[in-house]
Amino acid sequence: MTGVVVRRVPRPDAAAVAALERLGVATAHEAQGRAGLMHPYMRPVWRGARVAGRAVTALCHPGDNWMIHVAAEVVEPGDVLVVACSSESTDGGFGALLATSLRARGARGVVLDLGCRDAAELAEMRFPVWSRAISAKGTVKASLGSVNVPVVCAGAQVVPGDVVVADDDGVVVVPRAAATRVAAAAEERARKEAATRARLEKGELGLDIYGMRAALAEKGLRYLDGPEA
Amino acid sequence: MTGVVVRRVPRPDAAAVAALERLGVATAHEAQGRAGLMHPYMRPVWRGARVAGRAVTALCHPGDNWMIHVAAEVVEPGDVLVVACSSESTDGGFGALLATSLRARGARGVVLDLGCRDAAELAEMRFPVWSRAISAKGTVKASLGSVNVPVVCAGAQVVPGDVVVADDDGVVVVPRAAATRVAAAAEERARKEAATRARLEKGELGLDIYGMRAALAEKGLRYLDGPEA
Amino acid sequence: MTGVVVRRVPRPDAAAVAALERLGVATAHEAQGRAGLMHPYMRPVWRGARVAGRAVTALCHPGDNWMIHVAAEVVEPGDVLVVACSSESTDGGFGALLATSLRARGARGVVLDLGCRDAAELAEMRFPVWSRAISAKGTVKASLGSVNVPVVCAGAQVVPGDVVVADDDGVVVVPRAAATRVAAAAEERARKEAATRARLEKGELGLDIYGMRAALAEKGLRYLDGPEA
Amino acid sequence: MTGVVVRRVPRPDAAAVAALERLGVATAHEAQGRAGLMHPYMRPVWRGARVAGRAVTALCHPGDNWMIHVAAEVVEPGDVLVVACSSESTDGGFGALLATSLRARGARGVVLDLGCRDAAELAEMRFPVWSRAISAKGTVKASLGSVNVPVVCAGAQVVPGDVVVADDDGVVVVPRAAATRVAAAAEERARKEAATRARLEKGELGLDIYGMRAALAEKGLRYLDGPEA
Amino acid sequence: MTGVVVRRVPRPDAAAVAALERLGVATAHEAQGRAGLMHPYMRPVWRGARVAGRAVTALCHPGDNWMIHVAAEVVEPGDVLVVACSSESTDGGFGALLATSLRARGARGVVLDLGCRDAAELAEMRFPVWSRAISAKGTVKASLGSVNVPVVCAGAQVVPGDVVVADDDGVVVVPRAAATRVAAAAEERARKEAATRARLEKGELGLDIYGMRAALAEKGLRYLDGPEA
Amino acid sequence: MTGVVVRRVPRPDAAAVAALERLGVATAHEAQGRAGLMHPYMRPVWRGARVAGRAVTALCHPGDNWMIHVAAEVVEPGDVLVVACSSESTDGGFGALLATSLRARGARGVVLDLGCRDAAELAEMRFPVWSRAISAKGTVKASLGSVNVPVVCAGAQVVPGDVVVADDDGVVVVPRAAATRVAAAAEERARKEAATRARLEKGELGLDIYGMRAALAEKGLRYLDGPEA
Repeated sequence: MTGVVVRRVPRPDAAAVAALERLGVATAHEAQGRAGLMHPYMRPVWRGARVAGRAVTALCHPGDNWMIHVAAEVVEPGDVLVVACSSESTDGGFGALLATSLRARGARGVVLDLGCRDAAELAEMRFPVWSRAISAKGTVKASLGSVNVPVVCAGAQVVPGDVVVADDDGVVVVPRAAATRVAAAAEERARKEAATRARLEKGELGLDIYGMRAALAEKGLRYLDGPEA
Repeated sequence: MTGVVVRRVPRPDAAAVAALERLGVATAHEAQGRAGLMHPYMRPVWRGARVAGRAVTALCHPGDNWMIHVAAEVVEPGDVLVVACSSESTDGGFGALLATSLRARGARGVVLDLGCRDAAELAEMRFPVWSRAISAKGTVKASLGSVNVPVVCAGAQVVPGDVVVADDDGVVVVPRAAATRVAAAAEERARKEAATRARLEKGELGLDIYGMRAALAEKGLRYLDGPEA
Repeated sequence: MTGVVVRRVPRPDAAAVAALERLGVATAHEAQGRAGLMHPYMRPVWRGARVAGRAVTALCHPGDNWMIHVAAEVVEPGDVLVVACSSESTDGGFGALLATSLRARGARGVVLDLGCRDAAELAEMRFPVWSRAISAKGTVKASLGSVNVPVVCAGAQVVPGDVVVADDDGVVVVPRAAATRVAAAAEERARKEAATRARLEKGELGLDIYGMRAALAEKGLRYLDGPEA
Repeated sequence: MTGVVVRRVPRPDAAAVAALERLGVATAHEAQGRAGLMHPYMRPVWRGARVAGRAVTALCHPGDNWMIHVAAEVVEPGDVLVVACSSESTDGGFGALLATSLRARGARGVVLDLGCRDAAELAEMRFPVWSRAISAKGTVKASLGSVNVPVVCAGAQVVPGDVVVADDDGVVVVPRAAATRVAAAAEERARKEAATRARLEKGELGLDIYGMRAALAEKGLRYLDGPEA
Repeated sequence: MTGVVVRRVPRPDAAAVAALERLGVATAHEAQGRAGLMHPYMRPVWRGARVAGRAVTALCHPGDNWMIHVAAEVVEPGDVLVVACSSESTDGGFGALLATSLRARGARGVVLDLGCRDAAELAEMRFPVWSRAISAKGTVKASLGSVNVPVVCAGAQVVPGDVVVADDDGVVVVPRAAATRVAAAAEERARKEAATRARLEKGELGLDIYGMRAALAEKGLRYLDGPEA
Repeated sequence: MTGVVVRRVPRPDAAAVAALERLGVATAHEAQGRAGLMHPYMRPVWRGARVAGRAVTALCHPGDNWMIHVAAEVVEPGDVLVVACSSESTDGGFGALLATSLRARGARGVVLDLGCRDAAELAEMRFPVWSRAISAKGTVKASLGSVNVPVVCAGAQVVPGDVVVADDDGVVVVPRAAATRVAAAAEERARKEAATRARLEKGELGLDIYGMRAALAEKGLRYLDGPEA
């Protein structure tokens, strides 16, 4: 299904998106059973942003960013554009001009399985971008890809309409149908972690808080006073 | 041609150098036909610097930084020292002492196809360095290389006297003979981009500004309301 | 020797530890004959920290951080926890909760041959962490490793009780028995570098300060006015 | 959907599978519009095998091969087992014993986004395996994954029932619904290539056979007798 | 401890060495609790060799193979020379001449955490070499390292006198004191595997042979007839 | 200088080319002062070939092999085609059809800084190819590059008319003007190595043959009977 632009993308639950943005990648990833995380080579172009939004996807070819221009038209306020590439490439297919355009259309951020340029300017604009590389390498507009088809981006399957959550820890994808459930589980997890943190701050040990001692002993963990001879 | 130091290096046009420094790597790279860019593994040791200058080159061997000391003598105010290595190495052949020396000789910055150490101190000094790694690994002074011979650095050919431009997006090399032409093309490109940006900010689409719709249709791009069955 | 926790770890000389923390990784590494450095993929999660401390070690399995919880109990004030992994993994086995726990126990920092998550929060907490990756990938608590056994971490042998020094340049290990000698050599080296720096700042050349000209000539270095025909 | 084993997997068209096995990866990949290829780090453990079969999938965790044992029960004659991993790992979760078991159940081969061991023995057995690494690193049986759920393996989406084609060029996935169409297109492509090859062998040029000269001229390709001044 | 050659190296038990050579890397690695394996980037220069022997070590610097020449003098019949490097390098510090010398001294093979050249000739000679790369890059003889000191090679600690086992699956190190115990455990393991294999060949499942069904059920594994809605 | 095809390429000395092909990469590389070697990621698609020939160059863009078709017309008997890429790519831009065409035109082999497909068929054809990857990923014919301009390929500068030598050790480039001198030095080196080998086979040590003992002693190498306390 190449050479196709799908205009209508289902919308994930807005409250779930807001909760996931607040709770962040690590919590969302754990809350959905440690699934959906992109490879850790996906890094923020500047540190400190955290966004969640509806996934709009573009599938490009190496050295070619034409489909990002096509995608800009179908982006709606609150979306995160996810750009996959048909083979591994670090070429700089995204920069400040496209960021200006996407921001004007309402995009919350961009996730690129390719390179990004204008790094300094994007940081000044405070426009959130995650990419596999920073590279000034320019791209052409010659080959058709697709917009809003399911893609694999940095090892994660992304279906248009899924929720994309991104922060300094990376990028995670939550399937649309699971968003409400995952957001609730993430809230619960965050609550528990806050309680745990208060205990840890006082010097209590995870060994006791999580009740690990019995399991460790059963597995045969031995405590010695010094190295074995 | 190893074991050689060439003292005299031709000087690129000063106005072109100044313009390229102002316009930056991405624009310079596009303006010369998407050529001359170093591999994206070349990263600034600290973010926010932008320099351009005459290329002075050193060719070192892995784990050996002797030729950087030799090069320091032939560096002149405004130069950027480009250090290549005869095989891939991340050893930290450059640090705060060499930076102090090069700054005292007038160097604008350093580009290293090897590692860099004293990262915190270089950031405090605001001395611009691009390198393939940050590494404290020390180096010896045992093998002759050369100074001011043509080198390949991070995949780009650098001839002494070329213009090196470096910023947060990476490093690009502009051949000396092309500097004036490339600077002019870069100025023109920057002017156009400013105009384009103003239109994009208002929400106009690249599809329309660049007139892409006809070419996309001719290639067979199809718009659908939803996923194909 | 797996499934073992060694409770008692010898303590390196406190004055040596303090000196090494002040002098930093690059100087310590040179002072002990360019040995003990971890691979340069070990990077600080946030820039600007510098710590030294007694090494406490944990050996984990890929995707499993159980032994970090076990190690937390044996950490004492001033320690640096070094976490090795039985095969290469970037999974995020360490985050803000464990940092909270370790700080409460007095740890000065953590060195991970695996991934780290909660990067933004760790930066806010100013808790020093070095890791091979930033990754939100969650881990399990299923397989026994060991605590306070000798490990290889990022290419460096670490014996519990050694001194670990870490800053923006990376991580170096100084054997406990060598700590006093290395600290003294590092002090001496720092003194010499300060003197050298003052001369370099005035424009003197390393070629002259280090007396390199004779050795270069003997090796056959030739100075030319321009490129050889 | 973790901790799940799906027993029934739809069967792709047998004639299409046979044709794709005969035609191989490169032709199948082109015939379906250059889609579905796994990353090139997937290499055969021994050279010279070519297989196609119904995809049966297993999703494992790093350092854990439990689900491969579970998958062995649902493998049927003619299947290719595709093993994905929830994060990047090269641990050797597959070797000669599992190969013996899978061959006894009728599997045509195995595709592993992890490591493989017993390389010499697998070559002797002539059991076809593609993997991202050869590694003797042993694995545990501790964490539940799933069998016959959709997975991402080496950058390609694999749905149980798809056709997996693998040879010395790598691994490609053809969606079950597209198998007949892709096989027919691949046959057609192979026919055309045979005709083209006969002409190329006689010294005719691709420039003429494919009629490229006009397009090259239109793009502005210039022929020179020697380098430009 | 650099600039040192240790002449006398303890000898591991000869019967254990012979058994480990016969049983190979994967079995030896499992038999000692999945420890001691070098990183999987260590590959045989030609496929099909299997050796075990007493470890003699050399520590070189990047781009410098001087210490291999020094090590040749202390190699004794049956030894495997293990060459570590003080930083990561792929330079080709070993080739057919050194192989000729080492074979004349009785070495069983060589393990290199650097590059190897003369690959075709080494295959013809049937001299077993494992290395991280094949590279013709020449090296110098300028910096002292050491011979027969403990080293870290490809992530594994190697003490002179340990047993090194290498085959197509990679390289594993067995500490000298553990050699007899590990060899016995490996024999036992091989016996069990032969019995298991006979059952697997008949189509019995690992699930039943290893008795995994209860543990899987307890963890909550669910069998479904088709994908969940 | 993009979009250009240079028809006439100077011819290196035929006797030098023949000698370099006979002597191989490692010897040629040493004979020209350890220069001109491509990165070790360049590997033969099948083992056992050795070729040397005049370099004809093509500069392609990622995912685009159009210029290889253009280059086929200017290839003459005895040439080696060197294909560079404007950014890093592993896409399979070369396969059996192009090999058939190039062989028909007299090419001795191909060196690709991109991927290669039809690996099994190329091995059967015995057509020599070196590449950075084996990948079935198809390419387009959309962007102009150039033919017979100077390129950087895998870290080495290649000027049309240079001699390219390739075998199982990798690929080295000898500048045309240096070919005769390098071939003579390589012959001399091979003669010396044959004599050295005869002595090494008898058990003489490189330490004595090369007279290294004095230099080692002067550097301070110490021989000990056992490990230092």
